[in-house]
Amino acid sequence: MDARPTYDEKLLRILRESAAIFAAKGYHRASIRDISAATDVSLSGLYYYFRSKEELLFLIQDHCFGTLHHRLNEELEGSTDAVARLRIFVRNHLRFFLSNQAEMKVLSHEADVLTGEHRAAVQKRKRAYAAAAEAILTELGPPGGVKPRSATFALFGMMNWIYTWHRPDVDPDADRLAEQMTHLFLHGYRTPIAEGAEALPERSGGGRGDAPSIWRTD
Amino acid sequence: MDARPTYDEKLLRILRESAAIFAAKGYHRASIRDISAATDVSLSGLYYYFRSKEELLFLIQDHCFGTLHHRLNEELEGSTDAVARLRIFVRNHLRFFLSNQAEMKVLSHEADVLTGEHRAAVQKRKRAYAAAAEAILTELGPPGGVKPRSATFALFGMMNWIYTWHRPDVDPDADRLAEQMTHLFLHGYRTPIAEGAEALPERSGGGRGDAPSIWRTD
Repeated sequence: MDARPTYDEKLLRILRESAAIFAAKGYHRASIRDISAATDVSLSGLYYYFRSKEELLFLIQDHCFGTLHHRLNEELEGSTDAVARLRIFVRNHLRFFLSNQAEMKVLSHEADVLTGEHRAAVQKRKRAYAAAAEAILTELGPPGGVKPRSATFALFGMMNWIYTWHRPDVDPDADRLAEQMTHLFLHGYRTPIAEGAEALPERSGGGRGDAPSIWRTD
Repeated sequence: MDARPTYDEKLLRILRESAAIFAAKGYHRASIRDISAATDVSLSGLYYYFRSKEELLFLIQDHCFGTLHHRLNEELEGSTDAVARLRIFVRNHLRFFLSNQAEMKVLSHEADVLTGEHRAAVQKRKRAYAAAAEAILTELGPPGGVKPRSATFALFGMMNWIYTWHRPDVDPDADRLAEQMTHLFLHGYRTPIAEGAEALPERSGGGRGDAPSIWRTD
């Protein structure tokens, strides 16, 4: 009926294969020629969709964060229980990134590459997604002692690090892992920190949070 | 009395400044010439210490993991309480990487670059360090439901992700953050998972852990 679905599928295939190449070679070492060879689309065919390698990287990042957040909103719809919403959030995030590990690596390693409007647009998407996470944490009630900002990033760290270690043959699948990470996070987040109970005796003369650079020879 | 301390200090300065350059430009884009310019050491002066850029990257990684683990052993000495030992582990890790963020980025982003003996030597250091972490978790007693391997990597993720978000002007210092992350992890790790309590109704027809690639157009 119209050419639109074909256009979309072709572009999405190019984005997927480009993400794999960026993940394997690194963005800066990968060329549009590499993309052309892997996708079997001519250079002029590629430039029909984007004008530069940076715009291609932007499309990958924008599509990832957009899809991730869109799916989250779909999954959250109708759910009102705060713990269930946290679990949905973690599950959606893990499902997404265990299915898209090349993209995870590209989003993480090439986060600083974009400039100007591309950068601003992706930052906007990221902020919206992080705000959704923080809103879910807020629904859980006041934390037991961990600051919400630190807690949010601790949770993201826990989830995002999977691209470095997760092996589908030995590790839990996304849904099992989501149960475990939700559980791990939730109880620590809600349990109050006993005043003074966390202090440790100082050793080796280190000042609080003022560790020397490892390169010092002392 | 001898030239050894001077030699060490010079090499350590080269490693520190090289890590900063690799973190900023990426390993593959940085050249030995860049290192030479930044350190004000001639090319032949640099090749006195290492024969290739890969050997330089190896020295950075080997020195990082070696120092991190050596300090951990020093800090753990004489401590027998399992929770205190966990807290010491987290604090040592966070102190190290908040003081060495360029190194953190290089260790994380260039983990796959090394080959042959260099790779094997760094893998050995990493395995020894991860084994130390797992031993501390084992001392905590049986986990409440999270698998030890997933729990270990969840903890590493929580800690290692700091290089993407931590701002010294607004976020807790290493020692405060170590208290919070230890607390966050510990309670979730120890609390039993109630059988069946974590199940969520399935939505949008997703199979367990079998989420479609985001590039699919459905």
